[in-house]
Amino acid sequence: MSNLYDLIIIGAGPAGYTASIYASRFKLKNLVIGEISGGLASEAHLIENYPGFIEITGKDLMEKFRQQAEHFGGKVFNDNVIEIKKNKNEFKIKTRGGKDFSARVLILALGSSYRKLNIKGEREFLGKGVSYCPTCDGPFFKDKVIAVIGGADSAVMAAIHLSEFAKQIYLIYRKEKLRAEPIWTERAQLNKKIKIIYQINVLEIQGRDKVEKLILDKPYRGKNELEVSGVFVEIGSVPNTVLIKDLGLVSDKEGFINIKEDGSTSVSGVFAAGDVTTGSSKLRQVITAAAEGAIAAKAAYNFLKNKRY
Amino acid sequence: MSNLYDLIIIGAGPAGYTASIYASRFKLKNLVIGEISGGLASEAHLIENYPGFIEITGKDLMEKFRQQAEHFGGKVFNDNVIEIKKNKNEFKIKTRGGKDFSARVLILALGSSYRKLNIKGEREFLGKGVSYCPTCDGPFFKDKVIAVIGGADSAVMAAIHLSEFAKQIYLIYRKEKLRAEPIWTERAQLNKKIKIIYQINVLEIQGRDKVEKLILDKPYRGKNELEVSGVFVEIGSVPNTVLIKDLGLVSDKEGFINIKEDGSTSVSGVFAAGDVTTGSSKLRQVITAAAEGAIAAKAAYNFLKNKRY
Repeated sequence: MSNLYDLIIIGAGPAGYTASIYASRFKLKNLVIGEISGGLASEAHLIENYPGFIEITGKDLMEKFRQQAEHFGGKVFNDNVIEIKKNKNEFKIKTRGGKDFSARVLILALGSSYRKLNIKGEREFLGKGVSYCPTCDGPFFKDKVIAVIGGADSAVMAAIHLSEFAKQIYLIYRKEKLRAEPIWTERAQLNKKIKIIYQINVLEIQGRDKVEKLILDKPYRGKNELEVSGVFVEIGSVPNTVLIKDLGLVSDKEGFINIKEDGSTSVSGVFAAGDVTTGSSKLRQVITAAAEGAIAAKAAYNFLKNKRY
Repeated sequence: MSNLYDLIIIGAGPAGYTASIYASRFKLKNLVIGEISGGLASEAHLIENYPGFIEITGKDLMEKFRQQAEHFGGKVFNDNVIEIKKNKNEFKIKTRGGKDFSARVLILALGSSYRKLNIKGEREFLGKGVSYCPTCDGPFFKDKVIAVIGGADSAVMAAIHLSEFAKQIYLIYRKEKLRAEPIWTERAQLNKKIKIIYQINVLEIQGRDKVEKLILDKPYRGKNELEVSGVFVEIGSVPNTVLIKDLGLVSDKEGFINIKEDGSTSVSGVFAAGDVTTGSSKLRQVITAAAEGAIAAKAAYNFLKNKRY
């Protein structure tokens, strides 16, 4: 098997697999390379907002995406890309496992990661009360007492959104003033279910089988702990762009890759799709990532057709 | 039941149902109004590129979308909207069936319709041999000789689909090369029932009670006419924007509604999604329409939150 592809898609999440499905339909020889099949989406314990499935686990949905990509001829290779180089009209890729691949065009579907608190219990209780996705998981905390950690837009919006489900929400922020848009801040302040706790850090998340309390660095109402059955960590997301610095792609100040409407980037022959981009009005969902993958595949096809390989 | 909604979504296709799924998750009281459930997508006899389903009929997929929208609290009303008026901060809607509804924001997910040839006989023989819907009407042409007019995806896919019924299919295209996805072009070329005729236009459709022949602008096999008992017109789509002229929305020269990245239009409180818009780099697919629906629902939610209802 030759290691030369028309298109290599880096990232095996919703955007990457959809790009492959579309690329195969355009008869492009394509390869998806990703360390974790499904990417971040595969971590969602229940997805209810991907149209077509009233409820499905992220893992099951991503397995369907992978099967469909392979069914139509896409190859999937589970490894970590550690180097991308552009040579004239070809991209050279190296993986951690020591494989080399070449492609005429690239689609970067690298995804993003939730910024972590990096405290004890955070990893342990993931899916057992710890969540990074209010849109996904809010409905599971109906009539519960929960916490949201963070103070920017995503945290304050999360608290407001979660107030539609939860009984009470502690919005815990380490600084003395929220830094969300004033309208969000005001709405959070007026919301009777939301109690804002300033200048306190969470040191640890504790519980037996699931989240039961937070350990605080300063007393709140006389106690250094807070009983909650859920905690949403909303301190931003970080795009997975470490390995692409050598390509010299233009990105925004947070590192998300700037794309045009067709998924093209500032580098000829490089397209991007999904959470790693500035696209879809920054609504980072499975459905939007998948659509961006389809759009980027079409653009990659047009690019190759116009180049007349 | 009150007829006042936070959000009314006009159009019951992929964009409309997805907008409803997301709106319900944002706790917006929402109603989907559409004449045909599933819109044009429900007519596709086979969808292979919607991620999550290796193959599914358009009708079945749209039924899943509808069920999911209803499951999360969206109401679906099958009727035709005949009037939309903006009164201050409210939109007033009338349906053909005589119902009145009000909404604080609108999402227009009106979809698109089949483009017509506008030749003699086309209107006259509609339902008597002339069709725009191979999925609907294919079975009526079992063992017949028929024609498909067009050269893009929909035409080539139609010819392949119709080969399951018809004895012979002339695929007539005015240009010198098909412009469908290569996978479809290749399948058509390999199909023994399909004969592709390039660089010929059909001038007229003739017959007594039903279609009997096509009149061509250039001879094919020495004759300016072609005997067929059916003709499928598959030459693209036009946006369904007739009823929205009163809103004064800005659209492109083909009539597709101009949207910003978040689905907002030139009129405050009106969002648009799916085939009717200029979005998604004009890749008009179920997956892109659905993503636009999600994005517009999020924008509608933000709009209402900022208005402090």
